[in-house]
Amino acid sequence: MKLTLVGAGPGDPDLITVKGIKALQQADVVMYDALVHPALLDYCRPDALKVYVGKRRGAYSCMQEDINPLIVHYAQQYGHVVRLKGGDSFVFGRGFEEIEFARQHGIETQVVPGLSSSYAVPAAAGIPLTTRGISESFWVVTGTTKSGQLSNDLHLAAQSTATVVVLMGMHKLADIMAIFADCGKAETPVAIIQNGTLADQQIVVGRVQDIVEKVNESGIDNPAIIVIGEVAGLSTNPTIAVTEAISQHLTTNNVL
Amino acid sequence: MKLTLVGAGPGDPDLITVKGIKALQQADVVMYDALVHPALLDYCRPDALKVYVGKRRGAYSCMQEDINPLIVHYAQQYGHVVRLKGGDSFVFGRGFEEIEFARQHGIETQVVPGLSSSYAVPAAAGIPLTTRGISESFWVVTGTTKSGQLSNDLHLAAQSTATVVVLMGMHKLADIMAIFADCGKAETPVAIIQNGTLADQQIVVGRVQDIVEKVNESGIDNPAIIVIGEVAGLSTNPTIAVTEAISQHLTTNNVL
Repeated sequence: MKLTLVGAGPGDPDLITVKGIKALQQADVVMYDALVHPALLDYCRPDALKVYVGKRRGAYSCMQEDINPLIVHYAQQYGHVVRLKGGDSFVFGRGFEEIEFARQHGIETQVVPGLSSSYAVPAAAGIPLTTRGISESFWVVTGTTKSGQLSNDLHLAAQSTATVVVLMGMHKLADIMAIFADCGKAETPVAIIQNGTLADQQIVVGRVQDIVEKVNESGIDNPAIIVIGEVAGLSTNPTIAVTEAISQHLTTNNVL
Repeated sequence: MKLTLVGAGPGDPDLITVKGIKALQQADVVMYDALVHPALLDYCRPDALKVYVGKRRGAYSCMQEDINPLIVHYAQQYGHVVRLKGGDSFVFGRGFEEIEFARQHGIETQVVPGLSSSYAVPAAAGIPLTTRGISESFWVVTGTTKSGQLSNDLHLAAQSTATVVVLMGMHKLADIMAIFADCGKAETPVAIIQNGTLADQQIVVGRVQDIVEKVNESGIDNPAIIVIGEVAGLSTNPTIAVTEAISQHLTTNNVL
């Protein structure tokens, strides 16, 4: 009996790892989420059981409670279960809960990390979360906590020089922008990326003070990543001019 | 003329993406760093030029200035240059500087994200950077800034509930721990992981107040990842008992 958690990456099926593919090829059962690209299931053996266990926001905790015993059931009945999850299973993926539950039932566990959307989606869109002299750190938070409230960490993050990335936060975008505006960051660039790394990727770039309006105009929606910080203006299809700080940085480094 | 930045991942050569391999197979020239696994070069065409451009800490800025024009030189002379970097090239990888320099010289650019060691190394060692109810965010900082000083962001990070990951910070470990101790976090678990995801991986787990001593005893050294937060005690080979907060969490979720 074995459970292997495999991160499927941010969207593009070629952004899975070789190690992830090898796990899929060995799986007796694959339990996969809504955000997993269907092409990845082609790596499975023809006789492998494929089980869809997609979750939707709002019905989270109930569903997770159903998934944990299902993993144990399939491992006991069939042997090797691969749990294929969008992004990385340990970055807001609740993978640890599945690992612990399986271990309690005597199941061997392994984790194969996947590309987390938090930095991979911005990177593929040309946005580096860190850039020497501009941003020395990045902070990844979720817009959907257990309590339903925004994390207090956001207030600290807004005071820092960190690039802040919010996952699952589109429904609280106005509240998040208000926190940054209160910290004197109304002019800070913000990028919103929907369906990152896929053919239908959409990007909207603005500033803390106007991004909500731009998002409403564009119709961009979940699943989307919110990037807040000077680097957000560096997207390869920028809709705003680079800010003074970035411009000065690039000039100093003989890039412009 | 084309430049493709490819992230090689944290160490294990099977943690490269399919997209990264496809880029290597098409490359006319591959410029690779010290932390890249040599097995990855086997994906290159036999006639591809392989150029080692490893950097060492302390000689950073000088070397980067040499690498940028080299990329342009090889792209102009040979066509498609793949820049293969350990981890992800946009997470403290200075990849953006290479992209911008190449663009200024009329070279088409693409970014293929790689697994960043920041979360993938802890994940492979059983440590989730986030866990529902315990850690709602994670913050990745570098111990080696342009100025040589520790980032002021660390003081904010130490006040937050975020799991804090420090890359390239082993030479400042005592200073970093002092910041956390000053914020009342002497008891917070800390994990140090060297050569993560490789066969010779080493982990030392302790607390803010004793990790420096444990590191000295163990002889663990660079390249290593520092993880600070309750989740650091969850490593699959724990040398400290789980703290009260984690224990309570696991009990509440019917895991223990």
